[in-house]
Amino acid sequence: MHFQIPAVPHTTDPALQQQLQTLLDQKTKPVGSLGRLEALALQIGLAQGTTAPRLVQPQMLVCAADHGLAERGVSAYPSDVTWQMVENFLAGGAAVSVLARQHGLALTVVDCGVRHDFAPRPGLLVRKVAPGTQDASVAPAMTAAQCAQALAHGQAVVQSLPGNALLLGEMGIGNTSAASMLLSRLAGLAVADCTGAGTGLDAGAVQRKIGILREVLDRHAEARDPLAALAAFGGFEIATMVGAVLQAASERRVIVVDGFIASSAVLVAAALQPAVLQRCVFAHRSGERGHALMLAHLRAEPLLDLGLRLGEGSGAAMAWPLLVSACAILREMASFEAAGVS
Amino acid sequence: MHFQIPAVPHTTDPALQQQLQTLLDQKTKPVGSLGRLEALALQIGLAQGTTAPRLVQPQMLVCAADHGLAERGVSAYPSDVTWQMVENFLAGGAAVSVLARQHGLALTVVDCGVRHDFAPRPGLLVRKVAPGTQDASVAPAMTAAQCAQALAHGQAVVQSLPGNALLLGEMGIGNTSAASMLLSRLAGLAVADCTGAGTGLDAGAVQRKIGILREVLDRHAEARDPLAALAAFGGFEIATMVGAVLQAASERRVIVVDGFIASSAVLVAAALQPAVLQRCVFAHRSGERGHALMLAHLRAEPLLDLGLRLGEGSGAAMAWPLLVSACAILREMASFEAAGVS
Repeated sequence: MHFQIPAVPHTTDPALQQQLQTLLDQKTKPVGSLGRLEALALQIGLAQGTTAPRLVQPQMLVCAADHGLAERGVSAYPSDVTWQMVENFLAGGAAVSVLARQHGLALTVVDCGVRHDFAPRPGLLVRKVAPGTQDASVAPAMTAAQCAQALAHGQAVVQSLPGNALLLGEMGIGNTSAASMLLSRLAGLAVADCTGAGTGLDAGAVQRKIGILREVLDRHAEARDPLAALAAFGGFEIATMVGAVLQAASERRVIVVDGFIASSAVLVAAALQPAVLQRCVFAHRSGERGHALMLAHLRAEPLLDLGLRLGEGSGAAMAWPLLVSACAILREMASFEAAGVS
Repeated sequence: MHFQIPAVPHTTDPALQQQLQTLLDQKTKPVGSLGRLEALALQIGLAQGTTAPRLVQPQMLVCAADHGLAERGVSAYPSDVTWQMVENFLAGGAAVSVLARQHGLALTVVDCGVRHDFAPRPGLLVRKVAPGTQDASVAPAMTAAQCAQALAHGQAVVQSLPGNALLLGEMGIGNTSAASMLLSRLAGLAVADCTGAGTGLDAGAVQRKIGILREVLDRHAEARDPLAALAAFGGFEIATMVGAVLQAASERRVIVVDGFIASSAVLVAAALQPAVLQRCVFAHRSGERGHALMLAHLRAEPLLDLGLRLGEGSGAAMAWPLLVSACAILREMASFEAAGVS
């Protein structure tokens, strides 16, 4: 399967930016008093190329896959939890299921490479590259061809979805390890600073995890460009999200990025096409060690800081109403003149 | 008009607390991975006395009044903006109007003492103590009887409203001054640390504001107990909110506190009945100088930190969906056992 990196032009529209800023400044409030919400309104207006932005048919995409490296004991949970949680997403019992219902987000779960055969059903897309990646401590997590396939899947899935906003979440036992290694390699940071407790390792287990990740990074010392690193460290759900981010950004959809793992997909995508960051709204600063560094590397200021470290897209869903508010402020608030306020 | 401080018993229910914690820990997520949302779920469950909390008919109460001290130039805006913004709230064009619509919050504006006669209409309650407070630099902002009247108004308004959640916002040119003086006096802090730019003073004007507030604090040096300080510094909207907070807490409603001014009402209410804090959810840390200190004094950890400094209840409205999420997590998420997750 072939993957062509889509064009993501860096758009600048100084006239629209000025129009949006003027509009915000004329709203019935002290200048700048809606803080981050105003910056968000500006970003979404620019992404959509309008002074009256509107978010329609938001899509929550939860990408799931297994990691061969999980066999090395880098997670507090066994790999079987990945498929069990996919069942839970589809049955409506997971955090992201509950939050997507609350906010009217269409939820699609993508099996990008889970080590399990799912019965077909609504809300599930099977785009399985393989039943889990290879153990990255003995071989690259995936081949270049598998990586291209996952990227193409992400691209095609977004092309098939309606709406102008994409929320990104994920599930995959072992995937904080992949994200930590991508951060360490692509941002040039010490792996110990990039590595945290994931689903709940104790301090000793985190130290062992760091040792394993250092070993894997050394084994794939040559994997320095973004796609080579992605193939070396995994996982299929991250690669699928990279394809989804690139495609969504090329269509000027607004992308709401969840936590550490979803951000690692953006890290890779932005290394390929820096302008994707214009379309990305970072939902929250995760409690997972490494996320703050990753956000700083991406020069991203997240909306929420609630100590979340669940993934699934749960943080993206919680931030969603703020994006709706930002658009509503632009479209619905009165100006000083219209309201007759001095 | 008489005001009797309602009883707000400090409720402890270790058995329920344990039940709630167990329930949260058994949900399909790593223990504690929903961060602050879990603490919020616990708080609301305890406030409602149930493991299945539900927020119904949330009421956004925006209390408005004028301040005699505004004549001294402590605000960037003239007092007329207070009534003009009340008209804007009622016409649906203000930030809080837009946000209340988005979140399905019933919006009630209370004229607690605006220097303007409003035509009666739906959504407006006229509970005017006087057309603005006295200039606190020459006399107490209100008499003890006026203070009691405003408190009683707040109490009665809450008694008349349905639902089990109260969101508190306000409007009143000059009211950051009152809030700063209440903070300085009741928390024993230097007035310079409690005083900020309000709606947008420049650095020189903030220094002049500090000088005026210091003068007012000195003039009312004897006003040390919470209600004496409230009467000395004002305003009618703050006193009305104090009554509303006390009543709502006594009924075990959940109270969502907006920014600096709404928090100053909680500061007074908590000085009278410390257990009100069990029912208060602090929506956000305002960009207004002094709010961080006020929150620290109240040992409150707000949900959002978005640089908001608008008031009106706008921050409370933005935080609202997080409270809904916290309840939904408790009621709707599957347990590991029910979902068959290892």
